[in-house]
Amino acid sequence: MDHLTQTFFAVFIVFISAQVGAEIAQRLRLPAVVGEIGAGVLVGGSVLGWVQVTEPLELLAEIGAILLLFSVGLETRVEDLRKVGRVATLTGLGGVIVPFVLGAGWALWSGLETPKAIFIAAAFVATSAGITARVLKDLGVLHHKASRIILGAAVIDDILAMLLLAVVTSIQGEAGIDVVSLLLVLFQAIAFVALVGLVGARVMKRSSPWLEVPINPHSPFTISLALCLGLAFVAAYLGLAAIIGAFLAGMAAAETTQRDTLQRQLHPILAFLVPFFFVVTGTRVVLAELGTLSALGSLLVVTLLAIVGKVVGGGLGTLSLGRKTALIVGTGMVPRGEVGIIIANLGWQAGVLDGRMYAIIISMSLLTAIIAPSVLPLLMKPKVREEASTQT
Amino acid sequence: MDHLTQTFFAVFIVFISAQVGAEIAQRLRLPAVVGEIGAGVLVGGSVLGWVQVTEPLELLAEIGAILLLFSVGLETRVEDLRKVGRVATLTGLGGVIVPFVLGAGWALWSGLETPKAIFIAAAFVATSAGITARVLKDLGVLHHKASRIILGAAVIDDILAMLLLAVVTSIQGEAGIDVVSLLLVLFQAIAFVALVGLVGARVMKRSSPWLEVPINPHSPFTISLALCLGLAFVAAYLGLAAIIGAFLAGMAAAETTQRDTLQRQLHPILAFLVPFFFVVTGTRVVLAELGTLSALGSLLVVTLLAIVGKVVGGGLGTLSLGRKTALIVGTGMVPRGEVGIIIANLGWQAGVLDGRMYAIIISMSLLTAIIAPSVLPLLMKPKVREEASTQT
Repeated sequence: MDHLTQTFFAVFIVFISAQVGAEIAQRLRLPAVVGEIGAGVLVGGSVLGWVQVTEPLELLAEIGAILLLFSVGLETRVEDLRKVGRVATLTGLGGVIVPFVLGAGWALWSGLETPKAIFIAAAFVATSAGITARVLKDLGVLHHKASRIILGAAVIDDILAMLLLAVVTSIQGEAGIDVVSLLLVLFQAIAFVALVGLVGARVMKRSSPWLEVPINPHSPFTISLALCLGLAFVAAYLGLAAIIGAFLAGMAAAETTQRDTLQRQLHPILAFLVPFFFVVTGTRVVLAELGTLSALGSLLVVTLLAIVGKVVGGGLGTLSLGRKTALIVGTGMVPRGEVGIIIANLGWQAGVLDGRMYAIIISMSLLTAIIAPSVLPLLMKPKVREEASTQT
Repeated sequence: MDHLTQTFFAVFIVFISAQVGAEIAQRLRLPAVVGEIGAGVLVGGSVLGWVQVTEPLELLAEIGAILLLFSVGLETRVEDLRKVGRVATLTGLGGVIVPFVLGAGWALWSGLETPKAIFIAAAFVATSAGITARVLKDLGVLHHKASRIILGAAVIDDILAMLLLAVVTSIQGEAGIDVVSLLLVLFQAIAFVALVGLVGARVMKRSSPWLEVPINPHSPFTISLALCLGLAFVAAYLGLAAIIGAFLAGMAAAETTQRDTLQRQLHPILAFLVPFFFVVTGTRVVLAELGTLSALGSLLVVTLLAIVGKVVGGGLGTLSLGRKTALIVGTGMVPRGEVGIIIANLGWQAGVLDGRMYAIIISMSLLTAIIAPSVLPLLMKPKVREEASTQT
C-alpha cells in the first residue's frame, strides 16, 4: 500500500470502529463516547495495532475536538449565564473548587511538580453537560429543578474550566511558577474570555440580520465556522488551548438568531469528525500501563476523588434545597467526558502527562461517565415520583 | 508559532479565503469554484505564500474530494440511467468520445507519451453537471427537454469518466501499454463499477428499512459515510482512484429511501470540507507557468478543443432534435469543473503532469466553467420565448 492508501485505510478503520463501538455502548446503555474510546484502545498500537496515529489523522482529531467545543459553546448563552441563579452559580463554583483542590492535592501528594499537579487538577474540574443532559432527557426529568441546576452549573463549570485550562496551558513547560506570573496569565485569560465572550457575543447579535445577506445559502454557517477556526488559531497563537477559542466562538455564535439552524447544520459534521477525536484518544491509551496493582490503585483513588469532589462540591452549593436534591445535583455533575479527555490530550501532547497518568485520567473520565448515568436514575426516580405525588 | 499552531493558521486561511473567493465569484455571477481556486492561487506559494500544503492539509483536501464525488454519486441513480433515453445516451457518448479523441490527439501531437496523453484526454471528458444544473435552475428552464438531455447525458459522462479514470490511474507509471493489458484494466474497472454500482445498489435498496433500526439517529448517514470511506480505500487499494469508490458508494446510497435525508445532512460537511480541496488545488497552480506566450497559446488551444469537443460531440447525439437544441445541449455540457480538476490533481500527484500542464488543465477547467454559463443564457432565452409562444 502506498502512503495515501494507508492514510485512507486508517481513516476508514477509525470511522467504522467508532460507529461499531458507539453502537455497542449504546445497546449496553453506556454513553457513546465510552464505546468510541474503547474502539480506539482496541484498534490502537497497544492491542490490534491497526491504526498508527499520523499527523494527518491527528489534525482530523484536533478539528473534531475544536468543533465539539464549538458546539458546547453554542449551547452556552451569556443570557442563560445571567439567568442561572444563585444556587446554580454556587453549585458550579463548589463543583470546580473542591475537585480542583482534591486533584491537585492528590497529585502533589504523589510527588508531582506544581505545573503537572495543576494540569491533573484541571482534568478533574470540567463537567460533561452532554452526558448528564442525555440521561436526564432519557428519564424525562429535564425540566425539574435539580436538572436545571445541574445544567446551569455545568455551564459555569465549562467557563471556569476554560479559564483554568488557559492558565494551565500558558504555564506548561515553565519550570517554576510564581504568583505574579500566574496572576498575569489569569488576567490575560480572563481578558481574552471576556473580550470574545462579551464583545464578540454583542457583535454577533447585532450582525444577525446582516449574516442573512450573502448569496451563499450556507453563509451564517460558514461564517460561524470561519470564526471558530479563526479564534481557535488566535487562542493557540496566544499560547492558550485552541479549543478555548472554539468554545468562545460558539458562545458568540449562540447569540445570533440563526443559532438553531447552526446547531442543526453542525450535527452531521460532528457525527463525521468527532469520532476521530475519541478514537485517536483511545489509541493513545496503552492498556498495559494499567496492568500493575499500583496503577489500578491510583486509578481507583483518582476516580473516587473525582466522584467525591463533584458530589461534595456540587452538593454543598445546593444544600439549601435539602440533602436529597444536593445529592442528585452532585451526582449529576460527576461525568467528566469530553472536556476532561481534551485536557488529558493536551497534557499528553505537551509531555506533561506520561503514558500511565494519561491512561489513568482517560479511564477516570470514562468511569465517571459510566458510573454517574447508572446511579442518577436510582436517585432521581423516587424523587420524580415524590414530586409527581405532591402535584396530584 | 509551533507546528500545530501553524497548521491551524493554514486551515483557517484556506477556509476563510475560500469563503471570500466564493462570495466574490458569485457576486460576479461566476461559479463559486472559480473563486475558491482563485483564492488558492492567491494564498499559495506562487503569489502570497501564506499557505504551504502539508500532509495534514492534503488529507483534508482529499476527504473533501471524496465527499464531493460521493455527493455526485448520490445524484446518480441506476433507475435514472435506464430512464435517460436514447438521445441522452447518444449525447453522453458523443460528449465523451469526441473530447477524448481531441484531447489525446493534441497531447500526442505535442510530443507527450501515450500514458500522459490518455491522462490529459481523461481531464477533457468529464462534464460538471453541478455547474450547468445551477445555470439551468437560475434560468428557470430545468424542466425543458434540452435541460433534461443535458443532465441525463452528464450522468452518462460521469460514469464513463470514472471508467476512463480507472483505466488511466491503473496504467499510470507503466512505461508502455499494450492492448491486452489495457483491455484487462478496462475489464477490471468495469467489473468493479458493475459490482458496486449494481449489486451494491441492490443491497442498499433492500437494507433501507434495516438502516433505520439502530439507536443512533445519524445511523443511515454514518453508515453511508463508512461505506464511502471504505470503498474509497478499496478503490485506492486496487490501484484505482479513491474518488471512484466514493462515487460508487454514493450511487449505492442513492438507492436507499433515506437519499433525501442523506443529501441534506451531507450539505454542511461539503460546505466545510470541499473548499479545502479547491483551495489546495489553487495553491498548486503556479501563475508564472502561464506567463509565456507558448503556455498561453497552449491554454488557448486546449480550451478551444475542450469547448469544440463537447459542443460537437454532445451536439451530434442531439442532432435529431434540430440544430438549435443540439447547440444548446452541446454548450450545456462544456463546463468541466470538479471532476476535470480532480483528474488533474491525480495527474499532478502521480507526477504525470508537470507544473505547466497542471496549470493549463486547471485553467481550462475554470475557463469552460466560466464561458459556458455565460453563453448558455443567450442561447436558451430565445428558445424559451419560442417554446412559450408556441404554447400560447
